[in-house]
Amino acid sequence: MIANRRFTLVARPQGLPCESDFRLTQEPAPTIGEGEFLVRNHYASIDPAIRGWLEPGGNYMEPVALGDAVRASTIGIVEQSNNPAFPLGQWVMGLNKIEFYSVGRADGFTHPIDVSAVPSPTAYLSVAGAVGLTAWFGVEEVMKPVAGQTLLVSGAAGAVGSLIGQLARRRGARVVGIAGGPEKCAKLTGRYHYDAAIDYRGKDADALGAAIAEACPDGVDFVYENVGGVCLDAALMNINTGALVVICGLISEYNSAPYGTRNVWQLLVKTATMRGYLLTQYLDKFPEGARAMADLVAQGAIVYDEHIEEGIDNALSSMLRLFEGSNQGKMILKLT
Amino acid sequence: MIANRRFTLVARPQGLPCESDFRLTQEPAPTIGEGEFLVRNHYASIDPAIRGWLEPGGNYMEPVALGDAVRASTIGIVEQSNNPAFPLGQWVMGLNKIEFYSVGRADGFTHPIDVSAVPSPTAYLSVAGAVGLTAWFGVEEVMKPVAGQTLLVSGAAGAVGSLIGQLARRRGARVVGIAGGPEKCAKLTGRYHYDAAIDYRGKDADALGAAIAEACPDGVDFVYENVGGVCLDAALMNINTGALVVICGLISEYNSAPYGTRNVWQLLVKTATMRGYLLTQYLDKFPEGARAMADLVAQGAIVYDEHIEEGIDNALSSMLRLFEGSNQGKMILKLT
Repeated sequence: MIANRRFTLVARPQGLPCESDFRLTQEPAPTIGEGEFLVRNHYASIDPAIRGWLEPGGNYMEPVALGDAVRASTIGIVEQSNNPAFPLGQWVMGLNKIEFYSVGRADGFTHPIDVSAVPSPTAYLSVAGAVGLTAWFGVEEVMKPVAGQTLLVSGAAGAVGSLIGQLARRRGARVVGIAGGPEKCAKLTGRYHYDAAIDYRGKDADALGAAIAEACPDGVDFVYENVGGVCLDAALMNINTGALVVICGLISEYNSAPYGTRNVWQLLVKTATMRGYLLTQYLDKFPEGARAMADLVAQGAIVYDEHIEEGIDNALSSMLRLFEGSNQGKMILKLT
Repeated sequence: MIANRRFTLVARPQGLPCESDFRLTQEPAPTIGEGEFLVRNHYASIDPAIRGWLEPGGNYMEPVALGDAVRASTIGIVEQSNNPAFPLGQWVMGLNKIEFYSVGRADGFTHPIDVSAVPSPTAYLSVAGAVGLTAWFGVEEVMKPVAGQTLLVSGAAGAVGSLIGQLARRRGARVVGIAGGPEKCAKLTGRYHYDAAIDYRGKDADALGAAIAEACPDGVDFVYENVGGVCLDAALMNINTGALVVICGLISEYNSAPYGTRNVWQLLVKTATMRGYLLTQYLDKFPEGARAMADLVAQGAIVYDEHIEEGIDNALSSMLRLFEGSNQGKMILKLT
């Protein structure tokens, strides 16, 4: 019998997820039916979005059921197969769960990946995967910044933020990043090619707003928001007329009572637009975006970082790193 | 000497404007220079936007200076003229002040109006003026709702809101209005052709959200927000995927400490858009919009209401009516 270790939800988190919300369970690996294949997951993508899926309402996807393993994008290798398109040994990527074994179906999200085309298979969970595509479409489809415009990014040292800055700067925009702490800020300007970096730590909305004003003397034409809360309020106070505020994430708000955004009125007086952006809005352009990002990586035109933790027993601590901001790149869990 | 009575700002309001913030002053009527003309203002439009102009920052226009009369749209008659395009006796409309006499210039905002084309000159401050144009472009350019879609309007019994409902319903949309008190709600469905009305009084955001959910069983595709605060938060909890939230006004927030909007996260999970809308965005289409609204009024296809108070000494009380919601139609001050 093959043992399937699973990171299982047993209680819905109240605020920050904690040990008692999950259990590491072990059960027999699933058996596959006609047309199906068995994937041994090797890496799971630990994303802020997972927190939303643990809520009773689920947030834009079905909630993870109590007693089921936690949903995540994974990459792995086909170990059993009743489907010739998914032969044994094939690397695949899919929206699966944080568990050793998942069943794949031809009509599901799982698809083969070419690990020879990237420096490491994990690239499919970072720059060559959803993170890279999110940044690509965020810059090239949603915002389209040009020279002379200023783009402000919160969570700028994060997986998506670090790419947004580089992609927007390639288009000629001035990019200013917000991150937590001097080390991350140094990384923004030193490694990710941001024009300026702002440390949000120790600043309330007014102080952060003043710091943005100083770093963006011509105002802000685009806000790419990964954080929300105080960051969004401070950003709103600095938008130019006709600005676009893209809400990609609100990680500061996921584990706490709702933050009240005070400066929505700025949208009115600046005739500005704020829009929610999910990668799934550009599903039809995925191949094009994936090619573009792969080319940039192959050319060495963009840098990216991965933070890989080992062991399914570190699933929770990896998730918590996202919320405390202690990850140094795209958070990935190796399911050894 | 002609006496010019003026509603003059002497202190910046803290919260709700009060008597000590203004003074009725009297000075000689201004003299006109080359190409200029003197307008005797007969009616002033009392708009929520005036409150923003009293702030030190001004909000999308220069702030009203301390010691100057309060800015407002007015209609009046040319009484002296050094400009043949503006002969004596000509009715004109312009962005002037709450004062008996204003100086007009050919290159200013002031333009002749044809009072014979409307039931009353005051129509140029309501249905045939900025209010009517705001509703027209809001429906026909910003939202463009169609049959099968649901449009939610706050401040629905107000000057703009009462027209939004009628215009959207002409396009086949289902329109649901929020207003304060049973009388206004009865007016929404009885007079302004709303499909359903919701009384916001006595409801917190959760209760109002539940009432919206009941009145909008298919969710909300468009929110036309005039009120903000609890209304906006409750509306956000009911938006459909891809919804458009139009911020036209936030009257509930103008006189108080900033309200914190809790449900901005809904924009993300619903990939929705929220945009600020000012009439000035459609300046180039004004003639077309004005013709369309004039035709609808002439056909009796839309109804509208004006609430006219008499006397410049009632300027403040008229303004306060807007914030307490005790006006019964477009608030207009007759400057007798």
